Amino acid sequence: MIQFADQKQEFNKRPTKIGRRSLSRSISQSSTDSYSSAASYTDSSDDETSPRDKQQKNSKGSSDFCVKNIKQAEFGRREIEIAEQEMPALMALRKRAQGEKPLAGAKIVGCTHITAQTAVLMETLGALGAQCRWAACNIYSTLNEVAAALAENGFPVFAWKGESEDDFWWCIDRCVNVEGWQPNMILDDGGDLTHWIYKKYPNMFKKIKGIVEESVTGVHRLYQLSKAGKLCVPAMNVNDSVTKQKFDNLYCCRESILDGLKRTTDMMFGGKQVVVCGYGEVGKGCCAALKAMGSIVYVTEIDPICALQACMDGFRLVKLNEVIRQVDIVITCTGNKNVVTREHLDRMKNSCIVCNMGHSNTEIDVASLRTPELTWERVRSQVDHVIWPDGKRIVLLAEGRLLNLSCSTVPTFVLSITATTQALALIELYNAPEGRYKQDVYLLPKKMDEYVASLHLPTFDAHLTELTDEQAKYLGLNKNGPFKPNYYRY
Amino acid sequence: MIQFADQKQEFNKRPTKIGRRSLSRSISQSSTDSYSSAASYTDSSDDETSPRDKQQKNSKGSSDFCVKNIKQAEFGRREIEIAEQEMPALMALRKRAQGEKPLAGAKIVGCTHITAQTAVLMETLGALGAQCRWAACNIYSTLNEVAAALAENGFPVFAWKGESEDDFWWCIDRCVNVEGWQPNMILDDGGDLTHWIYKKYPNMFKKIKGIVEESVTGVHRLYQLSKAGKLCVPAMNVNDSVTKQKFDNLYCCRESILDGLKRTTDMMFGGKQVVVCGYGEVGKGCCAALKAMGSIVYVTEIDPICALQACMDGFRLVKLNEVIRQVDIVITCTGNKNVVTREHLDRMKNSCIVCNMGHSNTEIDVASLRTPELTWERVRSQVDHVIWPDGKRIVLLAEGRLLNLSCSTVPTFVLSITATTQALALIELYNAPEGRYKQDVYLLPKKMDEYVASLHLPTFDAHLTELTDEQAKYLGLNKNGPFKPNYYRY
Amino acid sequence: MIQFADQKQEFNKRPTKIGRRSLSRSISQSSTDSYSSAASYTDSSDDETSPRDKQQKNSKGSSDFCVKNIKQAEFGRREIEIAEQEMPALMALRKRAQGEKPLAGAKIVGCTHITAQTAVLMETLGALGAQCRWAACNIYSTLNEVAAALAENGFPVFAWKGESEDDFWWCIDRCVNVEGWQPNMILDDGGDLTHWIYKKYPNMFKKIKGIVEESVTGVHRLYQLSKAGKLCVPAMNVNDSVTKQKFDNLYCCRESILDGLKRTTDMMFGGKQVVVCGYGEVGKGCCAALKAMGSIVYVTEIDPICALQACMDGFRLVKLNEVIRQVDIVITCTGNKNVVTREHLDRMKNSCIVCNMGHSNTEIDVASLRTPELTWERVRSQVDHVIWPDGKRIVLLAEGRLLNLSCSTVPTFVLSITATTQALALIELYNAPEGRYKQDVYLLPKKMDEYVASLHLPTFDAHLTELTDEQAKYLGLNKNGPFKPNYYRY
Amino acid sequence: MIQFADQKQEFNKRPTKIGRRSLSRSISQSSTDSYSSAASYTDSSDDETSPRDKQQKNSKGSSDFCVKNIKQAEFGRREIEIAEQEMPALMALRKRAQGEKPLAGAKIVGCTHITAQTAVLMETLGALGAQCRWAACNIYSTLNEVAAALAENGFPVFAWKGESEDDFWWCIDRCVNVEGWQPNMILDDGGDLTHWIYKKYPNMFKKIKGIVEESVTGVHRLYQLSKAGKLCVPAMNVNDSVTKQKFDNLYCCRESILDGLKRTTDMMFGGKQVVVCGYGEVGKGCCAALKAMGSIVYVTEIDPICALQACMDGFRLVKLNEVIRQVDIVITCTGNKNVVTREHLDRMKNSCIVCNMGHSNTEIDVASLRTPELTWERVRSQVDHVIWPDGKRIVLLAEGRLLNLSCSTVPTFVLSITATTQALALIELYNAPEGRYKQDVYLLPKKMDEYVASLHLPTFDAHLTELTDEQAKYLGLNKNGPFKPNYYRY
Repeated sequence: MIQFADQKQEFNKRPTKIGRRSLSRSISQSSTDSYSSAASYTDSSDDETSPRDKQQKNSKGSSDFCVKNIKQAEFGRREIEIAEQEMPALMALRKRAQGEKPLAGAKIVGCTHITAQTAVLMETLGALGAQCRWAACNIYSTLNEVAAALAENGFPVFAWKGESEDDFWWCIDRCVNVEGWQPNMILDDGGDLTHWIYKKYPNMFKKIKGIVEESVTGVHRLYQLSKAGKLCVPAMNVNDSVTKQKFDNLYCCRESILDGLKRTTDMMFGGKQVVVCGYGEVGKGCCAALKAMGSIVYVTEIDPICALQACMDGFRLVKLNEVIRQVDIVITCTGNKNVVTREHLDRMKNSCIVCNMGHSNTEIDVASLRTPELTWERVRSQVDHVIWPDGKRIVLLAEGRLLNLSCSTVPTFVLSITATTQALALIELYNAPEGRYKQDVYLLPKKMDEYVASLHLPTFDAHLTELTDEQAKYLGLNKNGPFKPNYYRY
Repeated sequence: MIQFADQKQEFNKRPTKIGRRSLSRSISQSSTDSYSSAASYTDSSDDETSPRDKQQKNSKGSSDFCVKNIKQAEFGRREIEIAEQEMPALMALRKRAQGEKPLAGAKIVGCTHITAQTAVLMETLGALGAQCRWAACNIYSTLNEVAAALAENGFPVFAWKGESEDDFWWCIDRCVNVEGWQPNMILDDGGDLTHWIYKKYPNMFKKIKGIVEESVTGVHRLYQLSKAGKLCVPAMNVNDSVTKQKFDNLYCCRESILDGLKRTTDMMFGGKQVVVCGYGEVGKGCCAALKAMGSIVYVTEIDPICALQACMDGFRLVKLNEVIRQVDIVITCTGNKNVVTREHLDRMKNSCIVCNMGHSNTEIDVASLRTPELTWERVRSQVDHVIWPDGKRIVLLAEGRLLNLSCSTVPTFVLSITATTQALALIELYNAPEGRYKQDVYLLPKKMDEYVASLHLPTFDAHLTELTDEQAKYLGLNKNGPFKPNYYRY
Repeated sequence: MIQFADQKQEFNKRPTKIGRRSLSRSISQSSTDSYSSAASYTDSSDDETSPRDKQQKNSKGSSDFCVKNIKQAEFGRREIEIAEQEMPALMALRKRAQGEKPLAGAKIVGCTHITAQTAVLMETLGALGAQCRWAACNIYSTLNEVAAALAENGFPVFAWKGESEDDFWWCIDRCVNVEGWQPNMILDDGGDLTHWIYKKYPNMFKKIKGIVEESVTGVHRLYQLSKAGKLCVPAMNVNDSVTKQKFDNLYCCRESILDGLKRTTDMMFGGKQVVVCGYGEVGKGCCAALKAMGSIVYVTEIDPICALQACMDGFRLVKLNEVIRQVDIVITCTGNKNVVTREHLDRMKNSCIVCNMGHSNTEIDVASLRTPELTWERVRSQVDHVIWPDGKRIVLLAEGRLLNLSCSTVPTFVLSITATTQALALIELYNAPEGRYKQDVYLLPKKMDEYVASLHLPTFDAHLTELTDEQAKYLGLNKNGPFKPNYYRY
Repeated sequence: MIQFADQKQEFNKRPTKIGRRSLSRSISQSSTDSYSSAASYTDSSDDETSPRDKQQKNSKGSSDFCVKNIKQAEFGRREIEIAEQEMPALMALRKRAQGEKPLAGAKIVGCTHITAQTAVLMETLGALGAQCRWAACNIYSTLNEVAAALAENGFPVFAWKGESEDDFWWCIDRCVNVEGWQPNMILDDGGDLTHWIYKKYPNMFKKIKGIVEESVTGVHRLYQLSKAGKLCVPAMNVNDSVTKQKFDNLYCCRESILDGLKRTTDMMFGGKQVVVCGYGEVGKGCCAALKAMGSIVYVTEIDPICALQACMDGFRLVKLNEVIRQVDIVITCTGNKNVVTREHLDRMKNSCIVCNMGHSNTEIDVASLRTPELTWERVRSQVDHVIWPDGKRIVLLAEGRLLNLSCSTVPTFVLSITATTQALALIELYNAPEGRYKQDVYLLPKKMDEYVASLHLPTFDAHLTELTDEQAKYLGLNKNGPFKPNYYRY
């Protein structure tokens, strides 16, 4: 939503680690964020051999993959089957594709988190006619058993949990640098895959019909490429589609803020005083949930319109300084940096919980806490006590990184919406007639956004009303949509 | 929000009543809508003489006005003073204008509801340097005592409660057709004033710097003029500013649905089954309030995105037919026509309440109830029982017109936001350098929208946070806004 | 709920007005409380003749009644018919009584508010076999047209709106002092009828089988009689039944606080800061509603248990002094006196609204505002501005009397529960075998409380589950209830 | 709350396992319930030696304890210190006891869950002057590191996680069967300790001043003993105190239902259809939370009063059969048995989640699912898929045992209330003058209940209002409470 002007510089400032192959650019920030998922429930195998040094074959004899342990395939398959039950939209797409194959001939290279839900997406793309090769967009997030199941099912997957930075780029390279196979579509999450191809195989873009990018960071990079006139294929920004925005931000955060706090601290919400910094979609979701659970919520804002919304929704709008001494919890959701400073941290009361639901790890000035007079004590996974000389301790969650990614799980249903949007964007770009899309960044057409939504309604046993001819004429609308002007705010 | 393609035809179809002066076009629909306000609390004078036939002077000897009874001025003044206390933003504008007069030289002709809040606006425009002449945009909505107070204070006001159609146009004409005075700004609500000048005094537009229009209907007319190439001055659409939208629709309807239902029916909300047709801003407001009061709410929608929002917000999404037999209340908020048909009405259970919060009076097919076999019984003001041959009765509110306009009052605070937006739009258009605005319809610049919001924050004792230089740079924002891209959804 | 120890003294202190007949005791406080009802929507006849001086007959020739105007009967009948539709429980009792008449032989004298709902109760008692004579328990609350409809239907009703104190006792006397008719049951609301019989016709108690009393005040008087050993018949306290308590207090106040504030002030709730004094059932209802509408609510309490509930429900618990300068609204619900003192009133900010939802008119020290330096301005019915020398004004509603009685209406459904409870209490006392009830005050048996609830479930189309034999045995319960121990808190 | 008439028989029916020492009565049900706690976050040591066979000494040389590993003491101490920060009431009691020691001379034998919170209680009792010996009331629930820390601090604790049934009774015996030490107070949770003393050392009761019992089951046993005339010392039922009831049931379940469902299923609540069986305090808490998170909630009830509350709170009241085919989640909170039968389970839709928040493990007929045609698949800890022949699977949580005990954690704050209540009950019984308490079961005096509440208010920075003398007189109350009659419902 927000333009991060100096992000690029920041990437450059990060200390570069040297891997086996030297790279002009280190691994992106998002690819090293910690990430919790069902993986945390499974025992990681104790085998310390690098997958790159193993010889593995799937039951059909193929060895065109690199995963932790192909033998975990069966367990992974079960996880995938469970996910399928909550991803009805993709399953519906598969069903519709039994006749025509809208992705016949598509050669998709993908770089995303590798989870059961991604597996359902990947196998759906396969069912729609595409060939896929896949790497992970994060070195921690791969579910090894799911990767195994995909490999067993014939998908060339190159990913495991706990890759080194060098492994990370090696895996990506194995996806694109293949004899006799060249991708014509890119599905990216964070922009690392796109970046790699730009750097190493710029000629590949001649055959590529388009890029579908999901993340804020990746979209930002694409807009920068576009501004610089360097974007050489059409790109679809699926991050800003309405459905995804509302689900990933408002609805998902409404639930994950509670989950993240409970799993880390077992705290009781009732009666707790909380300050939420920022009242965008994420802040709105956090505030609504905490108020509903009986917390007393204060809000800080810089934007007077969002501020007025907070007032009307029943939250006192304050400056952080006004309440910092009294609150039990501080939550940042601004997309900004240094919203919680060392000065704030110094003034918090004993046992105050501090966490971040917003952007990356910039919002809380965690670095300022790494000073000799303060003692850090890791009390649980993702939970640190930072202790002042006088004994005061604050409870810092996930070291200031995203609480919901680190300490709660994302419901499959949310991922289903994202995955469906990605699939439709791929179909749209792949099948678009010459000239519909230029070398620019596009939003998903509203009609497809509406289509994604409609595919998810059966989950709720929801019944949509249809316009009569007379009504459609009265409203000047097509009966099949789109139903709203582009500027509609929902 | 929605394009009403055939609205113009509809206007033409309405049977024209012939007044003293024959008009090419009858009074607009909105100008005859019933309207409840503080007026309903005051005794209307029994004097039956038409104001047009009376000779009245204010205490300074002026007779350049036409109101019901100039002697009610003192009572009206008190109402205006009460309103001033809840319109802090306009009072702030007055204070800031003590030095410079941003509207010095402006000659504004206005056509709006004439209420205490409008009076505060008008007197603010005066304090900012403008000369004003004013008529009513609705034949029922004028508060006579407020009109009297304005006339006493030297404002040429031409309006009273219960004008005839001929009176309506006569009043408008008295505002513009003046010796030695010609307007250079138009403030309109519904488009009738603009229409009149187009018809009768097209040459006036040469001196007019711009039109500020508030209503859906008036904005629609302006866009049509613009499309037809007939708009000859810049126009500002203040209807679609974020602040106004959220307040007039979401927040205001959240409160007025309860108020309207209580004042008309004294019903208890707890446990009632309600179906709300449409989940736009108005529907969202109605649903939130009724759910909070313990009603069980069902939603109907045609748009899958809004439908999905309804699901996530905890409402069962149904077709009207599925629940029509069981619900206690039916509320329409679609902007559509014939959403509730005679067939639906036939199937409702005894005592079902039917009302409209959406667009004009089209949503419920009230005409279909005017058949011989059904008996109408007026049980209270704005409340009819329609009785079926078998004794079943449904409770129809405001004959299907807007419940919140007819049966509840609009909080001054909401009107303050609208009035401030109007004042700022007038200032912007009046002071804009040549060329900034062409002969087109414009939205209020986001920065001014943010300014309106910021002027209303002190009401809530709300304290906005300011960006540090470092943060502003990080976000790539100006510290004074605007803070969001244009497509931001709030 | 709370014992008001010095209430009796207070009655004695009130200056006695001398009526036509001198009385040893003045009219009770509750009988002169202002009271708003549907009556406020009807034009009161201009006829100034006292009903006591009129000769009126109903269409059957009877003149055993005294109402304002027997000709209003038809209009009153329609109001009664509308009320019948929302009092399904009484209608169900009528239906069941088509065979047996559980009140055959009962001669009931009643003294309650005379409204459409009471009329449904009275006619139900008639249908169950009882003879009734009725007076009003409040000099303002009688709906003249309803009284007329009852008189027309043969019920000896003695009541009109705007009785003098002398009229009040005269009406009561006309109910009990009749040739050839002596009551054997009393239905009282406030205790004035009971008091009158004690004073004037103590011998009547020989034939009286019991008293059913509804109000806090009346119940308090009965317990005092009982303690003093002067209660000579069994009495049923229907005020403290669960169903009545929760509906009259929690649920009804949840809705009426919003209604009362809107009708008097047209204020917007969103973002307003409110302090609610007292977190009993009434306070809980007020807080829940205001929070749901987006107000920021503070609570004061003296009881640490209720205080802890307020905390857990998400309200900041404060002393009134801490927030009195900042709040927009002060609401009292304590049952206590002088909760809001002149000192508090002096410190409130301009435009602060002050109102009482609690007990009688003691909570706000209104008397302290009647000093020369303060100006009172009546701005609307039930709304006064009290103006300080510096121009600050506070908005006092209903002069500190009960807001919901004075400025909102009580939903029929709530009254239905009370009326059904009264009817069942009468049946129980009338039919109880000798010895079941002594000369004491009783609560309604829990099973009858459950029965009242069950009679109201069909309104919500609610389907109760029945215990299987096995389950009933497991729980040690009778399948038909009672289902809870007496101390259960609901 | 509910009398379980045949519970005793059920205990007898349970298959007796034979331990090293044969017992006349097997371990109680509650003592084998699974139990999740912070323990699940700590690695259990791999040492398989039974603690009974180990020789351990604490740093002061004592070996009067039996725990898993005394070396974990330091880690346990940190957990205790963290808990102390959220148990302000007990810490306040310690502070007040610096002068007088209200438990000086008390010899308390305890049998409870052994967690950090219990440790804070135990060490508080020590600070108040008591000597304590302690065993666990559940074979799974002991936190080994906490037990170690207590032993290190000189408390004779006999407990470890994963005791056998024989271990269980052995530990209890080691607490009471000591040379030269005889308990004079009992603190029990479930009644097993009390039962053991009755069976083995009945003479001990001569010196015992009283029993404090916390659990429903234990209280039930005490009432049975009392009825049978076998209770030979006073007993305090702390289970039914208001504060504990509201916290353990309403407020705690409001939070733990969400936590339990998230941790086991990662489901999204928004838009889900849920049926909650039972609308007591637990049901009310579950319903409120799920509604707040956007679920659509149906309720079943047998009691018409609770049913009417559900209606007024906005839930459709249905029979389970009406909605069983459509719901996504079934939650039982009835205290009843076989509320969800095999027939219901057969009709549920695919992926329906079934869980129990009510009583023990009786509510869902889990036994009926253990038939050959159904396949059970354990997909996660506490999560089973039960698969029908046609592929339909339902998701059964915690095998039908209590979801919140098994799959979520209990906030320390709730435990603080319980622990404080226990401490005060011990003080009251220990210091009560001869004759205040007989050989019967007592509720905690309301004044002490209020005291517990007041000790917890500082957590919320809550400020209680004090009655003025005049107000106390007016209300007939003591300024220090108790503030409500015994029947008050809160």
